[in-house]
Parts: sequence; structure tokens; C-alpha cells
Amino acid sequence: MAAILRKSHQRLASQLSQQFSRSMAAFTSARPGEPTPAISDAHKGPTGVLEIPQRFLMGPGPANADPRILAAQSLPLLGHMHPPFLKIMDEVQQGLRYLFQSDTKYTLCASGTGHAGMEMAIANLLEPGEKIVVGNNGIWGTRVCDMADRFGAEVVNLQTATGTSFSLAELTAALEQHKPAVLFLCQGESSTGVHQSLAGVGEACAKNGTLLLVDTVCSLGGVPMYADAWGVDAIYSGSQKCLSAPPGAAPLMLNDKALQKIKSRKTKVRSYYLDLNLVGDYWGWFGSRSYHHTGMVSMWYAMREALAIVSEEGLEAGWVRHEQAHKALWAGLSEMGLHPFVADPKDRLVTVNTIKVPEGVDWAAVCKNAMDKFSVEIAGGLGPTAGQIWRVGLMGYNAKPANVELVLAAFKDGLTQQGFLKA
Amino acid sequence: MAAILRKSHQRLASQLSQQFSRSMAAFTSARPGEPTPAISDAHKGPTGVLEIPQRFLMGPGPANADPRILAAQSLPLLGHMHPPFLKIMDEVQQGLRYLFQSDTKYTLCASGTGHAGMEMAIANLLEPGEKIVVGNNGIWGTRVCDMADRFGAEVVNLQTATGTSFSLAELTAALEQHKPAVLFLCQGESSTGVHQSLAGVGEACAKNGTLLLVDTVCSLGGVPMYADAWGVDAIYSGSQKCLSAPPGAAPLMLNDKALQKIKSRKTKVRSYYLDLNLVGDYWGWFGSRSYHHTGMVSMWYAMREALAIVSEEGLEAGWVRHEQAHKALWAGLSEMGLHPFVADPKDRLVTVNTIKVPEGVDWAAVCKNAMDKFSVEIAGGLGPTAGQIWRVGLMGYNAKPANVELVLAAFKDGLTQQGFLKA
Repeated sequence: MAAILRKSHQRLASQLSQQFSRSMAAFTSARPGEPTPAISDAHKGPTGVLEIPQRFLMGPGPANADPRILAAQSLPLLGHMHPPFLKIMDEVQQGLRYLFQSDTKYTLCASGTGHAGMEMAIANLLEPGEKIVVGNNGIWGTRVCDMADRFGAEVVNLQTATGTSFSLAELTAALEQHKPAVLFLCQGESSTGVHQSLAGVGEACAKNGTLLLVDTVCSLGGVPMYADAWGVDAIYSGSQKCLSAPPGAAPLMLNDKALQKIKSRKTKVRSYYLDLNLVGDYWGWFGSRSYHHTGMVSMWYAMREALAIVSEEGLEAGWVRHEQAHKALWAGLSEMGLHPFVADPKDRLVTVNTIKVPEGVDWAAVCKNAMDKFSVEIAGGLGPTAGQIWRVGLMGYNAKPANVELVLAAFKDGLTQQGFLKA
Repeated sequence: MAAILRKSHQRLASQLSQQFSRSMAAFTSARPGEPTPAISDAHKGPTGVLEIPQRFLMGPGPANADPRILAAQSLPLLGHMHPPFLKIMDEVQQGLRYLFQSDTKYTLCASGTGHAGMEMAIANLLEPGEKIVVGNNGIWGTRVCDMADRFGAEVVNLQTATGTSFSLAELTAALEQHKPAVLFLCQGESSTGVHQSLAGVGEACAKNGTLLLVDTVCSLGGVPMYADAWGVDAIYSGSQKCLSAPPGAAPLMLNDKALQKIKSRKTKVRSYYLDLNLVGDYWGWFGSRSYHHTGMVSMWYAMREALAIVSEEGLEAGWVRHEQAHKALWAGLSEMGLHPFVADPKDRLVTVNTIKVPEGVDWAAVCKNAMDKFSVEIAGGLGPTAGQIWRVGLMGYNAKPANVELVLAAFKDGLTQQGFLKA
């Protein structure tokens, strides 16, 4: 038998080398009856190796990724159920516990961008007909209202003046009035640059039988978060801001209370892709590991590396670094005569800085000049702040002196061109 | 003014270097009243640079990614609305038109894995109460039934014996009986290794006012697809199979008829993240470019590169290569006395090959030996085929002689250990 196999093996090898001459011999893998006209080359392309120009991504995100994280994305793939890959998923879960400052078992990354994390939280924590109070101080609250409505929830849209945050008294009043299943708050509202305080909110939610859900897309890793100490029941975030990874993974956590809510749902989660009863089982939440969807292999390598970088630097050192970059930015901007959009200093977010456009200055021209001359992205406003402000992100890998200097140089040049500063 | 700025600039630079000494000075970015206990290091980690062992991913996917595609993922990020990035999105759309063989304007990638593409198609093409006939010949049909049910559709689960495909007569009868809004078929059913013929199906659907939706996750790029010539209205796929990219993007197309259906929906799509009226606008389907979510920058670099490789090789050459790998595999397996699970040759898929486990052979031991000794992944069955078969993927970068040889060597060794082949 072995001899036969050896011979057949030789035959096979010679056969293969003939077969793989990439002859254009007619293929037979079309099924009988399927027409196989000549291939249309009308849309052939692209061709050639991708090249990317350097950009300093100093807007509200994505921020530049740490090269160590980008390098991790060029590592060879593992299977989505292979033990070494499951170990990487475990490491991601661990790193997230540290980042969220929570002992919860229930952390994972949604296989999508921050919006997938938002939708995962909303789809799972609410059943049709249940009430959510949305603390809406910009665009993210508006999106949550839209999503919750699509999933059949009853939405209470609690709004505050653009550029301000909610007081604990306002939130407590809304909780007592509506007794919602969920209260949504956005810790860092990137359209306005507002940092929502969470002081006392977890306690107020617990008293009213409400789960506290917090969006930390542009704040996580940049400003303090103590999920357990602050009584936050559920959090989602994004990969491409203070974590310095590419967009594509949405870190998420639930505490025991939030998990219990999901386990005891009376209706199926309307999304299969985002159903935490299933996705959680792939991440080992329930003691086994079942295939739900194919994990995002390279993206989770990136997340693992991002979280290793967070652990190696230490959370507190990271928070201090973001704060120092913010202070250095404002020292420079103030010298130029620019002012913060957020009036109350205690409402100002350090990761996404919003800057009032002075009267008579063409904000778009300043952005265009920054990009054209320095390859620096400075963003304009979004939603309620469009046309009124610039937005400068100092997040993750970008929260450092070189990037602050570059942004200041771009502002100085643009404002000089605009005649706001003298040449 | 210039002199003042120069001086202040010097002051700033010195200030910055002091500030960035990463002192552990207390951070002030916690909001007043937010408790900031000592950071818990209980879950600190992971640390160190990620290392990945080499694996030959010869199961049903993910397949090994082409190193050129992995390299593209280490390129620096662009912003998700930057013109050079929008150009990359345009190139992806173009490459997909070639791949689908369609003149449609409406191609894009869902920001998620193949399941996100599946859910996007189902969520958008069906309104609550509408009927879908699901051609279910394995696990993907079952998932579509689940998803369609969650979105409130009326599901007709049309089943065929495991390891067989549907005849045109069976499909036509179902269409005439149910007049569904959508017929779902899976071109390449990876749990059974069945290749569903599409001959005549588009025409039958058109006659019955039905949209034809086809899953091509493990077939696109590996076997013929002529979306326009075959009258396929909507297709979704995955990135990690015959396209040789990592998992994380789901190519999708709609023709005009399918788009019309979505534009004229009476109800909102229940998922915000996957709403094609919004996602399509980010991809430029409707003449503008609006921000919907942050595109998956690195992943779309990978897709652009994957599609460039497809265009450079040429579709027909790629199909021939997959077919030749399949033939070479079966030449070797047949010599060993192994048999295809799929009885009818015209039902056999070339990209995912299913192999009957001979009586008395421990299938799992053969897989384990292949992995332990050769780092080769050979998969067992899934769902209806668990325990009965092995599955060998020959897809994309892996559809080549070296990989075929490696799989054959692994089988030979394992079957010899099992006593099925004589040493």
C-alpha cells in the first residue's frame, strides 16, 4: 500500500504541476445549465499595490493607530475557534476589565465599529415597549433614540442645551418620573466636546430599578472610568479613539445585573448578529465556546495589542497624558486668542476639544489649509455644532507633544492667512 | 503679534516637555464628585508583543490571508471621510462589480463579518409580515430562517436532504405556491459541501415577483457567478474565504430591482447599523456621501487589495485555479480510498470539499494529528454533518499545489495511524 501511495504521489505531483499552469482551459465548476458568457472586464480593477499618504488624524477620530497595533494586523491568521485565538480573546476580555475597572466576567468586542456596540447594547438591554431615557446632549443621544425606536422601545429624549451636561438633579428627576428600564448617557460627546459627569448617577439608577448604559466611544482610556465603583451597568466603546487601534471593534461590558436582564428577556433579541446570548457564548461567558460568527481575527489581534499597550503604560499614566496634552493645546490656543466652545470648565472633555470659530474667520479654510499644507486633520462641527466650532482630538497615540505642536502650527498658519493673527 | 507668538511658542515647548514627563501627578479629568479610588491591577494585562504561530487554515474558513493583503493592514490610517479613503471605497465597489459580474451601481461592504452581510440583506429586503422562502440545505439556511423570523418576516423553510441541492422544478413549485417577496439560496453550503445551481432560478423568481438573494460566502471568487446574466437580485459574501482577506467585511450587492424594494419600504429597517438607505449613502449610492458610521479603515484596505489581486489574476483564471486544486485534492484522496460526501458530482462544491469518514476511523484524531504534527487545519462536520465528514477548504490564497500536498500528507499520516492505510 505504501509503495502504491508513493508512486501515486509522484504521479500526482507531476499532474499538479501541469494542472497549475493556470491554463485558461474552460472551467467546469459552473453547474449544468448555468450560462457562462465571456467575463466582462467593464469593471475590472483596481490594480497595483495600495499606497496610503501620511495623515495626522487630529479630528474626533479615527486617531492615528499605534504602529505596533498596525504591525499586529499583518500577522498571519488563526482560525476563529483555534485555542491560540481563543486565548487572544481571553486576553482582550481581561484587558477590557482593567480598562473598565470592573471585576465583571462579561466583557467582549462586538464585531463592528462603535455603532455596532451602541446597537448591541440597545438591542439587548431593551425589549419592545420598555422605556429608555436618553440623555441627549449632541448627536450620539439622537442616534440612540433612533436605534431604540427601531427596536420598539419607548423613548424619552431628555435634551440639554448644546455644550452643557446634565446635572445629577436633572437626571434623578427624569429617573423618578419615568422609571425607565435604561438610562443612556454619553460620557464624552464628540460633537460638542462635553464630558458628562457620572457622579452619583449609578446610585440614582439603582434606586429606580434602571440600568445605566454609558457611551465611552471617545473617552475610554482617555478619562477616568470606574465601572464598578460608579455603578455603571453597561458600557460600549470604540477601538479607534483613545485605544489607538483601527476602527472595527466595539468593546462592551455588562455587569451581573445587566446580564441578568438579558438572560431573562421575554422576547428574542431582534438582531441575530448582535444577540449577546449567542455572541457571549462565543466569548466564553457561559462556560462553553460555541461558534456564532467568524471572529474578526486581525481586528482582535489589534485590540489585544491595544490593550497590552494600555496595561503597559498603566491607566492612570494614560489619563494624565491625555490631560496634559489637552492643557498644552489650550495653552497654545489661548495665546492665539481662541476660546473653548464649552463654557463651564468642568464640562470640558480632554480627548475631543471644541474651539469656537471667531467671527469673520472661515473655519473651513483653516481646516483645508491644515490638511493641504501640514497633512493635519482639524475637524469642523457636527450636527448641532456644524459651522460654529473646530474639533481637535488628542486621543491615544496622538495625545503627545509632537501632535499638539503640529495642531498649533496649523492653527497659527491658518489664522494668520485669515488675518485673525498678524503675520 | 508674531514676536509674541514666537516667544509664547518657546515657553510652550519647554512647558510641554515638563508636562509630558508622565508624572503620576493626580489627574483632574475626573468630574467633581466622581470617586477616583486607587486603580485596581487585578485584571491588568495582557503585556508583551503578540506572537502568532503559523497555521495552514485548510478548513472551511477563514483561509490563510494573502501576505500582500496582511501588509495592507499595516498601512497608516486615513480618516473615514477623507478623499483618498473615499477613493479606496470606490475601488472596492468597482472590484466588487467585476467579481459579481454586474453593472449595478449598488455594491458595498457591510462593516462586519459574513453574518453581518446576511443580516443586512434580510433586514433590508424584507418588511415585517412579508414572506421569504429559504432554500435550506445546511446551516446557513437555518440561520437565515432565524434572522428573518427575528425581523418579523413569515418564513417558509424549504428543506432538502443533507448533501443534495434543490432542483429548478422544486424551487419553481415553491415560488408558485408561496409567491414570496424573497427566495434565499446558498450557492456554496459549507456545512455539506454542496454547490447549489442557479440555472434558471433568476428567471423563475422574476416571473413570480420574487427577489433572488444568494449567499456566496464560501463560493465568491472560487466558482462562477454572473449576477446580471443569471438574474440574481442581491448577493452577500465574506472576506475570509476565496478572497484571501481576514474576516471582517461582507461584500454585498443589490441590483436596481432590489434597491427599489428598499427605497420603497413602508417601515424603517429595524437595524440602524445595517440600514442600506443610510449605509448606501456613505458609499455614495445616492449621489452624496454622508457620515453614517466610521468605516473600517484597515479592513477596507484589505478588501481593496483583495479585489486588486482578483482583478490582476482575472476571474476565469481564479475559477480554474480553484477547480484544479479541487481535482488534485480528490485525485489524492481517492487514491487513499476516501469518498466524497456529496453523492452527485454536479452538486459538489470545489471550494469546500466534504469527505466521508470511513467506518472505524476516528475523525477527530485525524484532525488533531494534522494540527499537532503539520499545523494543518482539517475540519470536521458542522450541524447536520457533525461526526460524519471532514471538510477541506481550498480557497483563495490556499487553492494551490503546496496546500493540496500538505493536506494529503496530513490525511495520509492520520489514516495510517488509524490503521486505515498500511504503514
